[in-house]
Amino acid sequence: MNDRNVAEVDLHNLQVSDPLIGQCQQLVREVAIPYQWEVLNDRNPEVIPSHAVENFRLAAGRARGEFHGTVFQDSDVAKWLEAAAWSLCQAPNPELEKAVDELVELIAAAQSGDGYLNTYFILNAPQERWTNLTECHELYCAGHLIEAGVAFFQGTGKRRLLEVVCRLADHLCTVFGPECDQLHGYDGHPEIELALARLYEATKEQRYLTLANYFVEQRGTEPHFYDIEYEKRQQSCVPKSDAAPWMVKNKAYSQAQLPLSEQRTATGHAVRFVYLMTAVAHLARLRQNEQQRQTCLRLWQNMVQRQIYITGAIGSQGAGEAFSSDYDLPNDTAYAESCASIGLMMFARRMLEMELDGRYADVMERALYNTVLGSIAFDGRHYFYVNPLEVHPKTLRSNGIYNHVSPVRRRWFGCACCPPNIARLFTSIGHYIYTPSTDALYVNLYVGNRVAISVDGHALRLLISGSYPWRDQVEIAVESAPPIAHTLALRLPEWCSAPQASVNGKPVNCEPRKGYLHIRRTWRQGDRVKLSLPMQVRRVYGHPQLRNLAGKVAIQRGPLIYCLEEADNGTELHNLWLNADSRFSLIEGTGLFSGKILLEAGGTRLQHTHYEEAALYHYDKVPGQLEPQQLTFIPLFSWANRGEGEMRIWVNER
Amino acid sequence: MNDRNVAEVDLHNLQVSDPLIGQCQQLVREVAIPYQWEVLNDRNPEVIPSHAVENFRLAAGRARGEFHGTVFQDSDVAKWLEAAAWSLCQAPNPELEKAVDELVELIAAAQSGDGYLNTYFILNAPQERWTNLTECHELYCAGHLIEAGVAFFQGTGKRRLLEVVCRLADHLCTVFGPECDQLHGYDGHPEIELALARLYEATKEQRYLTLANYFVEQRGTEPHFYDIEYEKRQQSCVPKSDAAPWMVKNKAYSQAQLPLSEQRTATGHAVRFVYLMTAVAHLARLRQNEQQRQTCLRLWQNMVQRQIYITGAIGSQGAGEAFSSDYDLPNDTAYAESCASIGLMMFARRMLEMELDGRYADVMERALYNTVLGSIAFDGRHYFYVNPLEVHPKTLRSNGIYNHVSPVRRRWFGCACCPPNIARLFTSIGHYIYTPSTDALYVNLYVGNRVAISVDGHALRLLISGSYPWRDQVEIAVESAPPIAHTLALRLPEWCSAPQASVNGKPVNCEPRKGYLHIRRTWRQGDRVKLSLPMQVRRVYGHPQLRNLAGKVAIQRGPLIYCLEEADNGTELHNLWLNADSRFSLIEGTGLFSGKILLEAGGTRLQHTHYEEAALYHYDKVPGQLEPQQLTFIPLFSWANRGEGEMRIWVNER
Repeated sequence: MNDRNVAEVDLHNLQVSDPLIGQCQQLVREVAIPYQWEVLNDRNPEVIPSHAVENFRLAAGRARGEFHGTVFQDSDVAKWLEAAAWSLCQAPNPELEKAVDELVELIAAAQSGDGYLNTYFILNAPQERWTNLTECHELYCAGHLIEAGVAFFQGTGKRRLLEVVCRLADHLCTVFGPECDQLHGYDGHPEIELALARLYEATKEQRYLTLANYFVEQRGTEPHFYDIEYEKRQQSCVPKSDAAPWMVKNKAYSQAQLPLSEQRTATGHAVRFVYLMTAVAHLARLRQNEQQRQTCLRLWQNMVQRQIYITGAIGSQGAGEAFSSDYDLPNDTAYAESCASIGLMMFARRMLEMELDGRYADVMERALYNTVLGSIAFDGRHYFYVNPLEVHPKTLRSNGIYNHVSPVRRRWFGCACCPPNIARLFTSIGHYIYTPSTDALYVNLYVGNRVAISVDGHALRLLISGSYPWRDQVEIAVESAPPIAHTLALRLPEWCSAPQASVNGKPVNCEPRKGYLHIRRTWRQGDRVKLSLPMQVRRVYGHPQLRNLAGKVAIQRGPLIYCLEEADNGTELHNLWLNADSRFSLIEGTGLFSGKILLEAGGTRLQHTHYEEAALYHYDKVPGQLEPQQLTFIPLFSWANRGEGEMRIWVNER
Repeated sequence: MNDRNVAEVDLHNLQVSDPLIGQCQQLVREVAIPYQWEVLNDRNPEVIPSHAVENFRLAAGRARGEFHGTVFQDSDVAKWLEAAAWSLCQAPNPELEKAVDELVELIAAAQSGDGYLNTYFILNAPQERWTNLTECHELYCAGHLIEAGVAFFQGTGKRRLLEVVCRLADHLCTVFGPECDQLHGYDGHPEIELALARLYEATKEQRYLTLANYFVEQRGTEPHFYDIEYEKRQQSCVPKSDAAPWMVKNKAYSQAQLPLSEQRTATGHAVRFVYLMTAVAHLARLRQNEQQRQTCLRLWQNMVQRQIYITGAIGSQGAGEAFSSDYDLPNDTAYAESCASIGLMMFARRMLEMELDGRYADVMERALYNTVLGSIAFDGRHYFYVNPLEVHPKTLRSNGIYNHVSPVRRRWFGCACCPPNIARLFTSIGHYIYTPSTDALYVNLYVGNRVAISVDGHALRLLISGSYPWRDQVEIAVESAPPIAHTLALRLPEWCSAPQASVNGKPVNCEPRKGYLHIRRTWRQGDRVKLSLPMQVRRVYGHPQLRNLAGKVAIQRGPLIYCLEEADNGTELHNLWLNADSRFSLIEGTGLFSGKILLEAGGTRLQHTHYEEAALYHYDKVPGQLEPQQLTFIPLFSWANRGEGEMRIWVNER
């Protein structure tokens, strides 16, 4: 167990100035957040009404009407509010601040006298509070409101929402717990656990940590809460139904089939899994709990060694938006939810804070630069929910195995968890870039930024620049005047085989530890660390048990996974082969790809003349001729910005 | 339009004596039929109760209790009865005959006074007869009873069941038709159409053909019957439901989205499609209807040029047990229902009778020797419902895209359409072997058999022998005494590149027409036709638009598709490559494979050491070494007779 204290960067003191992640953050700030606000207020006629803000208005008695939306509709508002809060602290915006302040007042007005706060139950079923935790996301919504309250406080300094969510959390502390008159339950969709841990860190109120831990430790114990709760519900409703609903029966869907200490594999709904594990890793560190730490190490290990896509996506099946089994990672039917990769970044961040090991940051980076960055369109107004690694648009609508797949990003969703989740991730990206610890400042991501980190009461000011991940060179310049003795721990990415570092021109020769190069010195204004991370184009091959990858190769440069898209390479991407010995050329993108690097390499295409009467099967020889074709690879995250077309990451090779 | 009259072989005059199809027919006769009878009577404690016979007992007033099973449970009994009838005419069996006679009496006793006969509605909803043709299979069940009645008459000479089904059909003629007081509808699941066409051929009662034609021509016309019927139902039931049920909405699921003359592609539930088209082809010939013929040609063409598996399977998705779209033929998630390939044989037979073109027999043979033959286990008591071309048992239970796949044949099914369908197909296989026409006797399949065909009142007796499809040589010996002038039209299979024929040692040099070699002569006792069909092992490649087959090859010898099975080749079949230049050795099978020919060829395996900590992705090189491995291919139909294991037809090649 690592006993170094880690902190969170104060986002007021961090400005992202990066041509890729920074541009995306700016897009979120300037386009996505206002766009999403319009949608949440039902003011965008092109999008199905969300009704999410209206539900709060109804609950606050400021409008008349009926609740609409999913049982967890409140969480869309909460996640958006969190995104707005982080945005405000880095880029003041009076108009946005006014809207947020009014929203906070609305939320406060909707809160019940005892602290309870959930518009679905307030409006629809006030007598049924806490009667169906298995299915109804009541604590999940509470968790997102709590996260919003913490972010609003940390981002703007205003305590108004924090007080609201503390009252809510205090209410939860009376309802849930080990006493006889308390509910011994937990939510079917984890989230409250990680939120309470954050609330504890913001308030230092021990009871929030205790309740978070109660929820985690109670999960999966016998007699099983889902069954008890179900029985209770059945007794109060006539007629009783014959069979328990599937979420009660399939307890592994919500990681409640066993106590966590006995679980061996990443299982069930992928978002639930990573949200839960984010909390467990946080608790393990805060509570110095070795059993929880072992649970994290074991389940992380199963996930990254058996069940993760090369894009940092998880959850390989549409049924239950869930993990499948070891080594089952189909490309075209993958679910790979955007929220799951965002949750994976959260889980990885907490693992990193616990272990200070670069391999967690490697996974975080992989998810960020591929699936997460790709989940938002270049226009900021369209989003992917599902992120398969191979898409053949023509077939999607005709075969049920693709029911969950969209060939293009969409304006919104009936279940709209992803868009505001994407927004809050990019506005809070600073939390992932650095892990400030008492022994060192861990630099996890080389996103260009300017930061001030408190070291023994002094501000260590740094500027990271270098056009990562397009260029090899990263520069870290010290901008603070007083000399500060501290260690900079620079992550050496797993994809880089020959990293080199220098300080003021002198090579650094120390051995890296756990994926970080530790440079200790008294840092002075003008000091310059240069990190060279040579970005050869790498061919990547799957573990031989990944049966969908046999004979195929993926292309990676730096942290970016590349793909073939129809717009560059024509249709029938399955008929393209990358030559085993071809060399890659780096191409400076233009237009939509301006500032981005594309790749080209020699390949072949099985060329054939399509005629109506062609037979479906041919004896003795392949029907067609192999002809040379230059293949163009684009970064995965940039695909589907030129309309509907085929895409494929894993390419035939020979 | 072909105006040659074709007939059906009288199965009394045909004895199958064949080491493969004949052995399977014997297995059906001696094992499957008695086994299925036990199951249908709920006397097999290892199988979920069928209740199908009991439902008839209840409807006949001979027992008390409730209906159980699907709404189409009656059809299981009808198909079994048809199988038994054909079996009795070729192999007398007093015990079976007694059981069948009793069953026929039971069915007769269950019939309502007006001729109506359906145990579900008689027992459960007598007032709701004919109110939900879209979903309730009422005419489908009637169709199977009619087929049974025809078969029982033709197979045993007994008129008892024929009379029952004629009363039923007469009842239908009053209920359905163009008059104001008749229902202008048709069944959601086609079957009645093909049954009425058969009943017409057995009875020559024109009204049955007229009604079959009415059902076919009415299908898909506007105003749409499904909507009219749904409206009517809704008016009589409170509360009305908001949305029409999916079978009403998704009219293409049951090929009712348009009149057939306007349909362009094979669409929807695959079994429904082929049952419907079997009737249309039959009607087109009997009614000399050019528009129906064009419909058949067009839809057949779409199916075989875009939507059929190499195994003669159709219906590439589990959702709706349905066709997908052109060139979408995934291997592992295929539905490929056994009943669909049986229905395809029926459709192909009617096409062949209409066009006398060998390409229909080619498809019939492909379905028979691969999917259909493989749908029954060597023990006769286990059946495949779903027949994918690639199975990885370890993954099936964990990923929802495989929900419909079983890695082994099963004893029975909740929806048990396949087992008795398999039984009736093999007992009536003689109908597919020959197409007797006025101008020639078309020999479609080289199943060994002895037959007597009536030619101008004389019996032309033939014996076909030769261990097809294992050996190249087929011999047709004339066994009838009086000289008979007639044409033998011998099918030259599409898979054979160099067929040769001789009569009494003299080569036949005439040009084949439409896939048949026409040999006209006066046949005398002792005449011997020798047909040589060299069976090189053929490598087969997919149309370049079949994106799951890129870089892969299938192996075929004669009509048999071969596959790799784990029992011979080890696990991870995706890590095996067949060498592009390797030669095949023919191996005589032993034990379970006695009498069968296996194939061996040189290949390579990506060999890797499995260790727990291995990374999921590897840079720069494939993790493992290619090592030579001899690959063993077995005929597809024989797989999964040695327990659970991987199987794959399309193999990597390089």
